[in-house]
Amino acid sequence: MSAIRKLLIANRGEIALRIMRSAREMGIRTVAVFSEADRAAPHVRYADEAVCVGPPPSAQSYLQMDVIIAAAQATGADAIHPGYGFLSENAVFARKVREAGLIFVGPSAESIEMMGSKIAAKQAARRMNVPLVPGVDEAITDRNAAKGIAAEVGYPVLIKASAGGGGKGMRVVPSEADFDEQLDRAVSEAVASFGDGSVFIEKYITSPKHIEIQVLGDQHGNIVHLFERECSIQRRHQKVVEEAPSAVLTPAIREAMGQCAVDVARACGYYGAGTVEFIVDENLDFYFLEMNTRLQVEHPVTELITGVDLVKEMIRVAEGQVLPFRQEDLSIRGHAIEIRVCAEDPRNQFLPDVGTLRTYRRPQGNGVRVDDGVEEGMDIPIYYDPMIAKLITYAATREEAAQKMVRAIDEYHISGVQTTLPFCRFAMQHEAFLSGRFDTRFVSLYFTPEVLDEAPDADEEALAAFLAARFWESGKAATAKAPVRTSVSKWKQNRS
Amino acid sequence: MSAIRKLLIANRGEIALRIMRSAREMGIRTVAVFSEADRAAPHVRYADEAVCVGPPPSAQSYLQMDVIIAAAQATGADAIHPGYGFLSENAVFARKVREAGLIFVGPSAESIEMMGSKIAAKQAARRMNVPLVPGVDEAITDRNAAKGIAAEVGYPVLIKASAGGGGKGMRVVPSEADFDEQLDRAVSEAVASFGDGSVFIEKYITSPKHIEIQVLGDQHGNIVHLFERECSIQRRHQKVVEEAPSAVLTPAIREAMGQCAVDVARACGYYGAGTVEFIVDENLDFYFLEMNTRLQVEHPVTELITGVDLVKEMIRVAEGQVLPFRQEDLSIRGHAIEIRVCAEDPRNQFLPDVGTLRTYRRPQGNGVRVDDGVEEGMDIPIYYDPMIAKLITYAATREEAAQKMVRAIDEYHISGVQTTLPFCRFAMQHEAFLSGRFDTRFVSLYFTPEVLDEAPDADEEALAAFLAARFWESGKAATAKAPVRTSVSKWKQNRS
Repeated sequence: MSAIRKLLIANRGEIALRIMRSAREMGIRTVAVFSEADRAAPHVRYADEAVCVGPPPSAQSYLQMDVIIAAAQATGADAIHPGYGFLSENAVFARKVREAGLIFVGPSAESIEMMGSKIAAKQAARRMNVPLVPGVDEAITDRNAAKGIAAEVGYPVLIKASAGGGGKGMRVVPSEADFDEQLDRAVSEAVASFGDGSVFIEKYITSPKHIEIQVLGDQHGNIVHLFERECSIQRRHQKVVEEAPSAVLTPAIREAMGQCAVDVARACGYYGAGTVEFIVDENLDFYFLEMNTRLQVEHPVTELITGVDLVKEMIRVAEGQVLPFRQEDLSIRGHAIEIRVCAEDPRNQFLPDVGTLRTYRRPQGNGVRVDDGVEEGMDIPIYYDPMIAKLITYAATREEAAQKMVRAIDEYHISGVQTTLPFCRFAMQHEAFLSGRFDTRFVSLYFTPEVLDEAPDADEEALAAFLAARFWESGKAATAKAPVRTSVSKWKQNRS
Repeated sequence: MSAIRKLLIANRGEIALRIMRSAREMGIRTVAVFSEADRAAPHVRYADEAVCVGPPPSAQSYLQMDVIIAAAQATGADAIHPGYGFLSENAVFARKVREAGLIFVGPSAESIEMMGSKIAAKQAARRMNVPLVPGVDEAITDRNAAKGIAAEVGYPVLIKASAGGGGKGMRVVPSEADFDEQLDRAVSEAVASFGDGSVFIEKYITSPKHIEIQVLGDQHGNIVHLFERECSIQRRHQKVVEEAPSAVLTPAIREAMGQCAVDVARACGYYGAGTVEFIVDENLDFYFLEMNTRLQVEHPVTELITGVDLVKEMIRVAEGQVLPFRQEDLSIRGHAIEIRVCAEDPRNQFLPDVGTLRTYRRPQGNGVRVDDGVEEGMDIPIYYDPMIAKLITYAATREEAAQKMVRAIDEYHISGVQTTLPFCRFAMQHEAFLSGRFDTRFVSLYFTPEVLDEAPDADEEALAAFLAARFWESGKAATAKAPVRTSVSKWKQNRS
């Protein structure tokens, strides 16, 4: 047991602030690091101390392992929390931090390494009898072998470059007739992108849901899961709406997935917070995808439904404490939804937008949580992830959490950059979302920029409110210009 | 069953906004009323429509029953929510609203009347075998009868003017030797203040805790309780720190108090949200005090520990819906603390302060809720209650909720008016609060303005941060001025 007294957060933005807040509540002093582009950022001011670690881009600052470790030593920090992204899943960094005599708030370097290798991760899952997407986990270079495997797992199949990522060298094959052509394309893309033409073949899930399980382990062999998060709504292969619990899992499947996630964590000797990702098909059959050996962007929805502060638990585990609860102490109460508020233009393929936050006013009220790292007047730097905030709502039921999200989005006033807010408002009211019957194809199936023009827009509403001042008199009351906030359509009715 | 489509909120400030947010989430349109002093207030802008109901003070606007009802009719509202204060416990108003064909979001006029009468309320409690503070509930005008009763209940006793309120005509009598003198004083004060010299005599509780039970009933005879709130920390006889659950109640006493509260509610045919107040002594014996037939200022702590949105439930009950849960469906998770952020000077007897909110920046983060009705740049009007916000924290344990409160207070930046924040920070860290062993004498026993000077002050911290810019260099990192935020004492160490 080694109490942490001062914690360096090797990250920026909302996640740096989120970690600092929990640390401060625990009486732990905080050290921020920042790039020259982030000199005036809120996470820098919030920390007890702050150290500049270099210029942007990240390779010259937030990814500079030795500089960050030196900053911890110079400020007398005894631990480093990596947040997510950047160095959070870098086994070399975890090892270097510990070799420097500091506490790494995260799992062992060995766990990171094992789960960072697709092959080793799948082998570990298979050892624990955790279901995998039917297919092979060995790279194939022989056409006939590939065809045989495709026939075995059954069409449609997916061909994936073994060295791949980001969709490169990935091909869906609907039937055997298409196999040769798609294989050729996949191999030539893979060679072009990675210099390696070997591929995996696996069953293609036509209606895939992305559902993940939060796990938490201590250094004494105790591992629990904190139920699931449904993260199927994605744009550009990245999550944009997440929720907990899932609208479709049954208690039995929830328990089975939770147990599988714990088994995967156990297979790699895991401690700290981690996430085991599954793909779930329309029959609710689930298959292990990968494990993220870090805190997840969408962790707040789990915090809200379980009442557990994941960052505090990560810190306690890193100190060597025993988990304060067992599996049977954990339960789900209510429903939480998170949306990622990104500086992106949903009308233009969600391309990142940059600019100055001319207006930035957060929503408030019961069950509304905003995790952000920005403030009015700030420039959104071009160097980093375009996420400027996470908006999370929590209510007794899923329906109420979605209604609260719409209310909160309407209260969120951001100008100066385009954001994902209009898309998320659309998603919250879409029948597929409300019914729970949606999958990772949500954006491609249902979203076009035009749908945003059907709903009354915030700007139009403000204009209508400005125009539609209303006079009302009574015997006793003074005459007043009472603003009437109304949708444009309503406003037109008022005038007719 | 009569669905509410448009709701007028007969209130101002934070509670008007809080009610509007729940209404909006339910798809209900909202109508604000406002006095001329509140023309630019946030609750006016937030509403779909707003009506001026007269000039300040409240008697000429927020208390103008007919004007408010006419405003509801003119805007097509089908219901009125009174909030707390103002007309919320006015049986005449409840009756007038209903006679105008509108829904009153609250209990029946008869319930309000019965619980508004101290005598009738106590008689109702006695009928249900709910414990009352030993004494008589009949006004006494005979000295010997008074003395006999005092001897019977046992010293110390309390003499209270039967027409009284606000501490006038109230006297504590430690022993029989003091009785005559204190009776004479109480009677002459009561005559001077109320023109009525009759008094009550009751047992004086030396270490009184104020603990209240939230109840909720529907119009079909179902009544549940939502556990207790501990509200003992008061200044000027008004609550300033509230929490749920209480740190000292046992499950058995919680259940007994809850049952008593439900019984009192049943005795007056209650529906809607109400609060049954008890006084609790050092042995955890509890005695019925009164019932508040409205939403309580401190209702958020109950919402956080139970997951129930009380305003939404009030609206549903008013529509005629059946409560969606039974007693056994309700449970406590975690711990919530609320502080009232009032424009008052804790260094000057908590006297109200007025001025302009030059700086107003809210705390954020997991488990932090701010219910307010103000914004930066706004004048705090002199006409109304000095409460500008409620800051509520929620965490897994009481200790963590208190630590979170300190963190949130430190993040709350208010300048332009003095506030209760420094006092609340003091309370959160006081041994009596932390141990749970405190009562309504907390302020008089422990608080003097000098204690605020012992803790590092926000202004001093800001100054120190400004002065203590720190330079740090490394081989790779650019030289940077990294701000160091630190307490003054730490800063001095850094310089030595």
